Amino acid sequence: VVSKLPQTGTTIFTIMSALANEVGAINLSQGFPDYDCSPELIELVNKAMKNGHNQYAPMAGVMGLREKIAEKTEKLYGAVYNPDTEITITAGGTQAIFTAISAVIHPNDEVIIFEPAFDCYAPAIKLMGGVVKSLALEPPNYRIAWDMVKRLINHKTKMIILNSPQNPTSTILHRHDIDELSAIVKNQDILILSDEVYEHLIYDGETHHSMARYPELQQRSFIVASFGKPFHATGWKVGYCMAPEHLMNEFRKIHQFLVFAVNTPIQYAIAEYLKNEETYLGLREFFQQKRDYFRKGLEQTRFELLPCFGSYFQSVRYSNITDEKDADFAIRMAKENGVASIPVSAFYTKGIDHHVLRFCFAKRQETLDKAVDRLLKV
Amino acid sequence: VVSKLPQTGTTIFTIMSALANEVGAINLSQGFPDYDCSPELIELVNKAMKNGHNQYAPMAGVMGLREKIAEKTEKLYGAVYNPDTEITITAGGTQAIFTAISAVIHPNDEVIIFEPAFDCYAPAIKLMGGVVKSLALEPPNYRIAWDMVKRLINHKTKMIILNSPQNPTSTILHRHDIDELSAIVKNQDILILSDEVYEHLIYDGETHHSMARYPELQQRSFIVASFGKPFHATGWKVGYCMAPEHLMNEFRKIHQFLVFAVNTPIQYAIAEYLKNEETYLGLREFFQQKRDYFRKGLEQTRFELLPCFGSYFQSVRYSNITDEKDADFAIRMAKENGVASIPVSAFYTKGIDHHVLRFCFAKRQETLDKAVDRLLKV
Ligand SMILES: CSCCC(=O)C(=O)O
Ligand SMILES: CSCCC(=O)C(=O)O
Repeated sequence: VVSKLPQTGTTIFTIMSALANEVGAINLSQGFPDYDCSPELIELVNKAMKNGHNQYAPMAGVMGLREKIAEKTEKLYGAVYNPDTEITITAGGTQAIFTAISAVIHPNDEVIIFEPAFDCYAPAIKLMGGVVKSLALEPPNYRIAWDMVKRLINHKTKMIILNSPQNPTSTILHRHDIDELSAIVKNQDILILSDEVYEHLIYDGETHHSMARYPELQQRSFIVASFGKPFHATGWKVGYCMAPEHLMNEFRKIHQFLVFAVNTPIQYAIAEYLKNEETYLGLREFFQQKRDYFRKGLEQTRFELLPCFGSYFQSVRYSNITDEKDADFAIRMAKENGVASIPVSAFYTKGIDHHVLRFCFAKRQETLDKAVDRLLKV
Repeated sequence: VVSKLPQTGTTIFTIMSALANEVGAINLSQGFPDYDCSPELIELVNKAMKNGHNQYAPMAGVMGLREKIAEKTEKLYGAVYNPDTEITITAGGTQAIFTAISAVIHPNDEVIIFEPAFDCYAPAIKLMGGVVKSLALEPPNYRIAWDMVKRLINHKTKMIILNSPQNPTSTILHRHDIDELSAIVKNQDILILSDEVYEHLIYDGETHHSMARYPELQQRSFIVASFGKPFHATGWKVGYCMAPEHLMNEFRKIHQFLVFAVNTPIQYAIAEYLKNEETYLGLREFFQQKRDYFRKGLEQTRFELLPCFGSYFQSVRYSNITDEKDADFAIRMAKENGVASIPVSAFYTKGIDHHVLRFCFAKRQETLDKAVDRLLKV
């Protein structure tokens, strides 16, 4: 068969996690915790199953969960979403992203993405016949040069994909970015896909500039979020998408034939769990403690620490250590030093390599200790 | 936005289940049981969660589950699939179908489907720019006229989608169909997508003619199956796809960016549950008892029973009762008689209406009794 994605290989996450297992390295590559989710949350899933919530959920998701999401969104960001028509539960953030792109990107439509970018955006765009217009950002600050964005805009521009807090760079959008973005899309037919799966993982008291805060952006946005990341259960695969009704209608046309519905008992459990807002508001402190601890450890190594404003990833530059390509260095470090990371070049489509590696710090303190010990020897 | 699926509305399952809830009708429309899955299976999920299986599964699925699927397939159908490279766990059968179509259908490729057809095939084909070539089958027997299929074949034909046992018609492929199909695809570049989610729900000692039985068909097939249907847990959303490596490679390229991975604890639980083969071999008897019981009840009504060889659906023709369109009649019957069904015209793309309704009989005996009581008054 002729491949639909001829340039696509296996995701870097699969490759690095498999390598970590194979060589017994500490796995700081793929983003998931090495501690467990709350026993209370497990018990809530168990209760939902025992209460017989084991058949198809409604196509758009369990209403109780959609209502909780609407409440939380209004409280945190001020936007009012109708849970009936503007919120859909998905099989994780990735499915929400794929579905949003599928729903609106026609052949030859252009989509602007900022690289390094999470690796599922570009393939979904290409699969729909769309054209990826990527703007490469530079370490250490990875700021968006909005005048460059302006130059990419033309009548074919259909969508801009944002991701704040950003994976893999740990940067966040600032108020200034919002203003620039608003000016650019004003009076234009440009949609926004805003990947906000790390919305609660943001540090030093910074504000999460959700698209849901800005009506003129919100009304043209698909906002994607996840429960796996914040609730330490990446294997449960429940996330959601919010969008104004005219966009959500198109989203659901695809969603219903792509997956139909999402795991029922987990939706009931999360609806219950969200009643206590500490479950998500407490995450800033929880992860900031890990970030600070890990950074302090890394400061003793030869790596150059890059800033980390959000997400549970910490990137480092190593140009002072070796001029190997980051993919080669990441593999060698996993094998020789026993620490697996993600080469950030994997998130650029154009083979750009800034000698940067990404570590996941959603790990127990002893794991971070052990990793730092090993990284000291690099 | 310009719709990618301008002719697509909400699935008939969502519409009829919502109507059933609204008017308090017995819901024999959407296919799911009104009794619970096995407490043992629930306990296995609970155990998996408590054992810490809550983070990302491998992209292709938990290996123990893939191995069990390979064993079961070899035992039942003789085909040897490599669990490492030829089996992928999906978020239900629907996601597997969507992914397989996405992986191989290019713009202008033609795909042959037999109608009435499960409603997710055509939208996925159209979304990929493919062309649906549908062959309408006729009640009461809905046999495939293979000479008509031959006439549809040309150099653009990329795929034939089969579904046995078939939803909604409850027909099955016979050996004769396999021979005709084999003759047609021989020496042609035509793939097969075989939706076998009802593989274990087949009655009167009939054989399930899985594509996995016939090497010349198997080597060009995506075979899709589900655990939600057989294990009475339609809300858990775990299924799988099997295909030869060169096809599975393409499938996984899409899968990894569409959903990345599937619910982990449920995969562990099902792997364990499959160790006892009675869990699926016992389904024939379990559902045949329901089929026979429901048919006996329906025989007393004015409806004309159509044959049911497999699946948990029973169709009836009602042309002797009214000449209303089946969508109108289904809605009226839900409201006035308190029994919700699926109008089979919803499964034809060309507005064909044979005055046939589909009932789901995966229900407790008392539910079937009550439904028959109400249907006696129609
Ligand atoms: C979707 S798998 C990888 C998890 C993740 O988001 C990451 O590591 O960046
Ligand atoms: C995927 S939702 C509907 C369930 C089903 O397969 C059916 O009712 O035909």
